[in-house]
Amino acid sequence: MRVALDAMGGDNAPQAAIAGAAAALSAYPEIAVALVGKSDVVKSALSGHSADMGRIEIIHASEVIGADESPTAAVRRKKDSSIAVGLRLLKEDSADAFVSAGSTGALLTGAAVTLDRLPGVARPALATLLPTKTGGRVLLLDSGANVDAKPEYLAQFAAMGSVYMERAEGVSNPRVGLINIGAEAEKGNALTRAAYGLLAALPGINFIGNAEPRDIPAGVCDVAVCDAFVGNVILKYSEGLAGALMSMLKRELMATLPSKIGAALSKGAYKRLARAFDYEEVGGAPFLGLTKVVVKAHGSSGEKAFKNALGQALRFASSGAAGGLAAKLAERQ
Amino acid sequence: MRVALDAMGGDNAPQAAIAGAAAALSAYPEIAVALVGKSDVVKSALSGHSADMGRIEIIHASEVIGADESPTAAVRRKKDSSIAVGLRLLKEDSADAFVSAGSTGALLTGAAVTLDRLPGVARPALATLLPTKTGGRVLLLDSGANVDAKPEYLAQFAAMGSVYMERAEGVSNPRVGLINIGAEAEKGNALTRAAYGLLAALPGINFIGNAEPRDIPAGVCDVAVCDAFVGNVILKYSEGLAGALMSMLKRELMATLPSKIGAALSKGAYKRLARAFDYEEVGGAPFLGLTKVVVKAHGSSGEKAFKNALGQALRFASSGAAGGLAAKLAERQ
Repeated sequence: MRVALDAMGGDNAPQAAIAGAAAALSAYPEIAVALVGKSDVVKSALSGHSADMGRIEIIHASEVIGADESPTAAVRRKKDSSIAVGLRLLKEDSADAFVSAGSTGALLTGAAVTLDRLPGVARPALATLLPTKTGGRVLLLDSGANVDAKPEYLAQFAAMGSVYMERAEGVSNPRVGLINIGAEAEKGNALTRAAYGLLAALPGINFIGNAEPRDIPAGVCDVAVCDAFVGNVILKYSEGLAGALMSMLKRELMATLPSKIGAALSKGAYKRLARAFDYEEVGGAPFLGLTKVVVKAHGSSGEKAFKNALGQALRFASSGAAGGLAAKLAERQ
Repeated sequence: MRVALDAMGGDNAPQAAIAGAAAALSAYPEIAVALVGKSDVVKSALSGHSADMGRIEIIHASEVIGADESPTAAVRRKKDSSIAVGLRLLKEDSADAFVSAGSTGALLTGAAVTLDRLPGVARPALATLLPTKTGGRVLLLDSGANVDAKPEYLAQFAAMGSVYMERAEGVSNPRVGLINIGAEAEKGNALTRAAYGLLAALPGINFIGNAEPRDIPAGVCDVAVCDAFVGNVILKYSEGLAGALMSMLKRELMATLPSKIGAALSKGAYKRLARAFDYEEVGGAPFLGLTKVVVKAHGSSGEKAFKNALGQALRFASSGAAGGLAAKLAERQ
C-alpha cells in the first residue's frame, strides 16, 4: 500500500510530516510512503530520522500552495505544487492514497478537478470524525466545501458516510442522522425538510431520522449529515467552546489554594479528558465520493497527527469503501 | 412597570413561575406582576408565598398550549390560552412586557400575529445571551423561527441586536459580527456573502466583519448574527457538548482515588464554572423587532430563571430599546 504524503502542507511542514511518515513506517509494516515536496527540503528534513528507506521515496514538486492563497487560482496556476503532484500520483495509480495538511480549499478543489467522482455522486464531501462522550466516534459530513447544498447531496452524503463507517471504521449498520433543529420530519429549514424524505427513502442505510445537535456529542448517531456551512459551524464552535470551557476551568482551579491542590491531584483525569478530545488521535478527514482515497490532515498537525492520518488513509484504502459505495449507489439506480 | 407572566408555561408550571414572580417582587420594587393562567390553579399555587399582594394580579386564561402542539394551529384555535391572553394584555397596553416559558413556536407565532412590528422590520428575531470566557455576554440572533432567512433580515437582526445590547445591557458601541466560516468577506454561503455587504453598509452599527464560530465563546463580538437554523444549531450543540464534556470529566475524576480527592478539594472551582454557564442566571431571550416587549424564558426554568427573566423584561421595557431601534431603522430610510 503506497501512500503519498504532502511534505510541504501544514503549519509545521516539513518537519512534522517527515517525523509522522517515519513513525507510520514503524507502526504499519504494509505501508510505503511517497514524500511529495521540494526534494532538497525533504531530503534535509529526513536526515536524523531512522526509517526503512526501502519504503520511502521522494517525489519532487517545485511549488507550494500557501494557506492564504485563493484555492481555485492556486490550483489553476501552480501545476507543480505538492498538492497537484500528489493528486496526479493518485490519478496515475502511482499511489493508493494521498494525505495533505495543506490548504483545505486547494486540496478539495484540486481533488475535484483531478480525480473522478464515483458514479452517482454529484459532490464529494469532507467527513470529520468527532469524539462522543461514550468513547465512540461520530462522522460529521459535509465539513468541506458544499456550503449551499441541495437535498440530493445530503442523501448522497448519508450513503457515503454510512459505507465509510461500516467499511473503514468497522461500525456495523451505522445509525445515520440528519442534523436538524427538531425531532419531527417537518422541522427545520427548506433544505432539511426536503432532505428528510430522500434519506428516509434511501435503501440500505439505517436512517434514524433527525439528529438534534444537543444529542450528537452523546453519540445518538454514527453518521451526522448536514451541509458544509452547518458542518463547519459545528466543528469550529466546538473547538472554541471546549477551549473556552477549559481555560475558564483552569482559571477557577488556580483561584484558591485548595482547588489548586485538588487540580494537582486530579491531573491524570484532565489528561485523559484532553486525550479523548485530541484531534491528533483521530488522524484526518477522509474526502468521500471520489474513486481515489484523499485524506485531509489538520493544518496544525504534529508528528502523531500525521502518523494517524497515514494510518487512516491505509484503513480507508484497504477497506474498499470507495468500491462499496459505488455498489451502494448503483443499487439505487 | 407592569409585567405579565405566563403562569402556565414551562416544565415546572405553575409553581416555578409563581415562586419566580414572588422573588421578582422582592428584588425589583418598581415591578408589578400580572399572573396569566387558570385562576384557580394560580390562586392555589400562590398560597404559601409571601409577597406584596398589592403588586400581584391574576388574569384568568382558560386554556394552555402544550409544548408538543403545532404552534400555528394552537395559536389559531386557543384564543383563551395563557399565551394569547398575555399577548393581548400587551397589545391593549395593559402590560409593559410579557414573559413566557411556554411553547417557543406558539409564543413567536402569537406575538408575530398579535403585535405590531417596528417600522422597517420584516421579521422579528429571538435573541439569546450566551456567556463568554471573559465573563461577558454575546447576544446570538436569530435563535427563533426564521430558519430560511434573507440577507436583509440579517442586516435588520444586526441593527436590532446592536440597539438591544447598548440600551438594555449597557454595552457601549457593541461589536457586531456576522457568523461565518471564514474571516474574509467573500467566505461563506450565498446568504452570508450577500449579507456581508448589507451589514458593512449599515449606518450606526459597529460591524467588525465575519465572526468565526471558534472565536465567539472567546468574546470576539457582542452581537453575533445568523439565521435561526444556524442559531439553534449553535445553542443546542453547545448544550450537548458542555454536558458531554462535564460528564466525561466527572467520570475521569471518579476513576482514581487521588483524582477523587482532588475533585473534592476543587469543588468550589467547578461550582463557579457551572454558575458561569447557568442559563438560569441570564434570564430569558428577548424577542426583538416588535413595538412591545416579549421575553421567552427557558422551558425548564426554575424560580431563579423566572425571577431573572422578569428582571430582564424590566430592563428591556425600561431601556427604550424598542424606541431606539425604531429611530435607528428610520435613519436608514
